[in-house]
Amino acid sequence: MRFVDLIESKKSGDSLTPDEIRRAIAAYVDGDVPDYQMAALLMAIRWRGLADSETVALTEAMVASGDRYDLDDIGGTLVDKHSTGGVGDKVSLILAPLAAAAGCTVPMVSGRGLGHTGGTLDKLESIPGLRTDLSATAFRDQLQHIGVAMGSQTETLVPADRRLYALRDVTGTVDDTGLITASILSKKIAEGAHALVLDVKVGRGAFFHRLEDARELADRIVAVASGSGLRCSALLTAMDQPLGHTIGNALEVAESIDVLCGGGPADLRTVTIELAAEMLQLGGIVDDPDRALRKATECLDSGAAAERFELLVQAQDGDPRVLSNTGLLPAATHRCSLHPPRSGYITGLDARAIGQAGVSLRAGRNTQDDVLDLGAGIELHAKCGDQVDVDSAWVTLHQGPAADVDHATELVQAALTVSTSPNDQRPLIREKRP
Amino acid sequence: MRFVDLIESKKSGDSLTPDEIRRAIAAYVDGDVPDYQMAALLMAIRWRGLADSETVALTEAMVASGDRYDLDDIGGTLVDKHSTGGVGDKVSLILAPLAAAAGCTVPMVSGRGLGHTGGTLDKLESIPGLRTDLSATAFRDQLQHIGVAMGSQTETLVPADRRLYALRDVTGTVDDTGLITASILSKKIAEGAHALVLDVKVGRGAFFHRLEDARELADRIVAVASGSGLRCSALLTAMDQPLGHTIGNALEVAESIDVLCGGGPADLRTVTIELAAEMLQLGGIVDDPDRALRKATECLDSGAAAERFELLVQAQDGDPRVLSNTGLLPAATHRCSLHPPRSGYITGLDARAIGQAGVSLRAGRNTQDDVLDLGAGIELHAKCGDQVDVDSAWVTLHQGPAADVDHATELVQAALTVSTSPNDQRPLIREKRP
Repeated sequence: MRFVDLIESKKSGDSLTPDEIRRAIAAYVDGDVPDYQMAALLMAIRWRGLADSETVALTEAMVASGDRYDLDDIGGTLVDKHSTGGVGDKVSLILAPLAAAAGCTVPMVSGRGLGHTGGTLDKLESIPGLRTDLSATAFRDQLQHIGVAMGSQTETLVPADRRLYALRDVTGTVDDTGLITASILSKKIAEGAHALVLDVKVGRGAFFHRLEDARELADRIVAVASGSGLRCSALLTAMDQPLGHTIGNALEVAESIDVLCGGGPADLRTVTIELAAEMLQLGGIVDDPDRALRKATECLDSGAAAERFELLVQAQDGDPRVLSNTGLLPAATHRCSLHPPRSGYITGLDARAIGQAGVSLRAGRNTQDDVLDLGAGIELHAKCGDQVDVDSAWVTLHQGPAADVDHATELVQAALTVSTSPNDQRPLIREKRP
Repeated sequence: MRFVDLIESKKSGDSLTPDEIRRAIAAYVDGDVPDYQMAALLMAIRWRGLADSETVALTEAMVASGDRYDLDDIGGTLVDKHSTGGVGDKVSLILAPLAAAAGCTVPMVSGRGLGHTGGTLDKLESIPGLRTDLSATAFRDQLQHIGVAMGSQTETLVPADRRLYALRDVTGTVDDTGLITASILSKKIAEGAHALVLDVKVGRGAFFHRLEDARELADRIVAVASGSGLRCSALLTAMDQPLGHTIGNALEVAESIDVLCGGGPADLRTVTIELAAEMLQLGGIVDDPDRALRKATECLDSGAAAERFELLVQAQDGDPRVLSNTGLLPAATHRCSLHPPRSGYITGLDARAIGQAGVSLRAGRNTQDDVLDLGAGIELHAKCGDQVDVDSAWVTLHQGPAADVDHATELVQAALTVSTSPNDQRPLIREKRP
């Protein structure tokens, strides 16, 4: 079968067979199919969509393009979490050690930030010395010893995803739920996970602005995961305003350490505990939702999660003293505090604009080649529902020499809505699926 | 503007501006846009379609990618004809000299055959010595002297079309009416035509099987041509069975000479005269449809069209003696005659299958690199409505040493439907547009 016939077939709305999908991905990774034909197929997929059965086949074909970690002999259920990306979303930093402390094994392969949302690897790497380029052996050893590892995607893990993603990025084919699903699940399956909790962000700062779109992706991933033998559940969580009070790599690590030590902002703590409870249930550690929530809370409050994080930092060559002294983290050279234009209640805090302000401060990337300022970022002293006063700062920008402070200031101030009375906020946990 | 934004824009159903289209085509031809991005844009166009205004802009952008013949000083209206391609469609060979003999100037730039349909250049080149690679100067001189020239697309004439067509061919994006329209019209405008008659084939052997699809393309081209300053009308003609009695290059030239000399099959003669009448009206030679038909018929019957064809053959270095001696044309080394499976009336003669049989005999190409046997082909002794007898041959295959005769025989016999009584045939001229 010629590749152009596959394109014609998908273009006319037919389903591709598992065998056609398998051969197409193998041929593409082998260099036997040029990028221009794959680009046409991707757009035809974006047009006609992929059925769940096609997405299962695509996921498996992508897994088969590289190595697959076999971690079954480690014992227990290996549970991971994936977030669709938010602003101030440092949940993984807390959740991975927390779930491990509560009895899960957590093989977490994460990515870097791009655009207005941050990435777990960048945040982790703001801890002095910490490495995320774990070899397959180091990853396995660490899981065996401390039950949690947080690494980057190696060259040999799902190479099809790396090539396809780079092509999708420049051909307008990123926003297809079938392609997104296969991209997420192939990496989780290849890293050896048995179960997955999804955090699908919904709101102004998220990929999905509307609940129904987030729900569609969540249901899609849950169904395809099930077809691929991966247990999966999803939380749809609010991303209208940033999560927690900090945006920026080192700032977010410090805030995560606060939560690990029993403090930190309530919203961040709540989302993390809810996700941990899901992981405990999927991992077969606890059956009952209420008991799972209690166990997760206990592990946070007892310091067990913090201890596990310390072990992780040590295992990945980071300086564990950051747990007791966040002053060891990189810091911006300058700070600048901004006052609200009027006194009143914050009724809106546009997460996307705040995320973009973070990029202007070099806390995030516009393109993959941008160099980050790990100490830079934004510190919110107030969030939606809080009262602000023209005489007090509501936000502090942490900036280095390369920051575009004027643009960041403009974005941050425009993100803020202040009203005379507080408004109703959407619940943090919008929905659970299935 | 980044090219990916253009893709996103078309993907979401927006119209592209003339300026965006102009810059996109220029950047692609200059090599600044990779094939994979153009492939994604083409599929997004196939998905969302092009508005007439976008197609006008695309046509103009494509014309601007290369040279444009300025033939205005030749005087009169330069009128060309384009066919969407059929089996046994040798109309151009007769029509171009006929229209020229009747007073039009006919600057015809043609293509080669691919798949089950043939190409005018291949047919012409079966005349010993005849050249179709006319330089711009030779093309113009010939038009000035004899009012008709039939050449191939030069390297510098609409290079954007050559590149885009090659990409469309391998990315499943050939069948878009906007892209087809711009491809056809850009070449006609660049070659200097002022008016164009379309022969849109419809039926089993044509690109369009359904009348409404053919009508859509015809109306599209007429509208876009008008937007580009080109006068245009269209005939929708039947292509259920082959046109005339021959399929294959030299065989079709011989049959065309028959028609030019006042003989030949009625269907071929009728389609040619109807198209000639349209050309005479568009060219301002004759106002009235009936008078146009009469004038075209006279030019054929008087021998004026044949004389003009002789001048064309001479001007393009061909051997003009073929007009009186078609034995000078290349001939196949072998012939083989086939009998029908039963006696009765032919009620179906699948043009597509016959065309594919021609390819098996090397009268046509599967890929652009295939070498043709100019003498090979198929000679139909009976067509729809005719009576056939098991004891008499209904078709003769003309084949050379490289032919796959078994496959051709199978296809030809399967193309034939014989019934006990004749059926109604669709009219040859299905519709005129506008």
